[in-house]
Amino acid sequence: MNSYSSKLVENAVNELARLPGIGRKTALRLVLHLLKKEEIATISLGNAIMKMRGEIMFCSECFNISDSEVCEICANQNRTKETICVVEDIRDVMAIENTGQFKGVYHILGGIISPMDGIGPHDLQIDSLIKRVAQGNIQEIIMALSTTIEGDTTNFYIYKKIKDYNVTISTIARGIAIGDELEYTDEVTLGRSILNRMPYESTLSK
Amino acid sequence: MNSYSSKLVENAVNELARLPGIGRKTALRLVLHLLKKEEIATISLGNAIMKMRGEIMFCSECFNISDSEVCEICANQNRTKETICVVEDIRDVMAIENTGQFKGVYHILGGIISPMDGIGPHDLQIDSLIKRVAQGNIQEIIMALSTTIEGDTTNFYIYKKIKDYNVTISTIARGIAIGDELEYTDEVTLGRSILNRMPYESTLSK
Repeated sequence: MNSYSSKLVENAVNELARLPGIGRKTALRLVLHLLKKEEIATISLGNAIMKMRGEIMFCSECFNISDSEVCEICANQNRTKETICVVEDIRDVMAIENTGQFKGVYHILGGIISPMDGIGPHDLQIDSLIKRVAQGNIQEIIMALSTTIEGDTTNFYIYKKIKDYNVTISTIARGIAIGDELEYTDEVTLGRSILNRMPYESTLSK
Repeated sequence: MNSYSSKLVENAVNELARLPGIGRKTALRLVLHLLKKEEIATISLGNAIMKMRGEIMFCSECFNISDSEVCEICANQNRTKETICVVEDIRDVMAIENTGQFKGVYHILGGIISPMDGIGPHDLQIDSLIKRVAQGNIQEIIMALSTTIEGDTTNFYIYKKIKDYNVTISTIARGIAIGDELEYTDEVTLGRSILNRMPYESTLSK
């Protein structure tokens, strides 16, 4: 017997349960929530995700998600095109934009090299990054990937590909997070932060 | 500045974040997931929830969610119509159906009386339950609501409304869950299970 008593509900539960982090119980809870609300709420939800998927574009320069051919950041005349920050996805762009500390442009890889998940260099926007560097006019590439094995692998792969161009390659500083206590910091981070110590004066101006 | 870099993404995130238990970070994760998958996956998700909301019906007898005028359980000739189990929503029906222990029919209230949430008796399918009882041919009403204050209030409200009809009103047994250890059981449950003790022989035949 069909334990959902409705094929329509079962179908909606099955579709929602395909999303990451949503199991069948949560999916049913969402369906019951939608059934209690006005029909218009469900229609606008459905339309928003379908329209988003159907009409989304990727910026032809940085490959960020965009509503137009060139994204707002790349189109902004006030940002320097000579500094490119390399990130994994749009969430990293948002996090860095929120700091207000970066005035250059981005390059969105769309992921990081992860053989376990079957993601190789050619599944990512690495060739397009090399092309941007090869065209010249780039002074610095800032690598801002996760501090994981996959992130380090991707950093190194990109480093090897662009090190012969006349461009500075840097990586965002790793160390003790501001507000963290030393005794609770893992030894790798603590060790690196001692090796990569910086002049005290340089911290005063910040 | 629009921190999502895309109005389409922002819109989809806003709609998803309206769902219970889904915040803006989770919503963005779901959006990025959908963007990585084939477009057809998003279309079938969108269609499934819109079709579900638009075409869903409620069984005219028990008010369960149904694809037809009368749900599968009410339409089943092998189930006795003389015993009605009163539950809050379809999840309880599914849980009870999974036990395989109930051969009667249901009545789905669509919630429980909860003044805090602004849910009164007239927001629920209580009048329709009284009507079913008043029509006769019902032998027993089994109350199967949550053991919360709201559940107890709803039980008592319904009890007062139907006690004068010639019908047995029972409630599902409360006690120590099978497999539970006594020392970890809360005192209210333990106290009630002593007050409501049952003949030992009656447990042998199960």
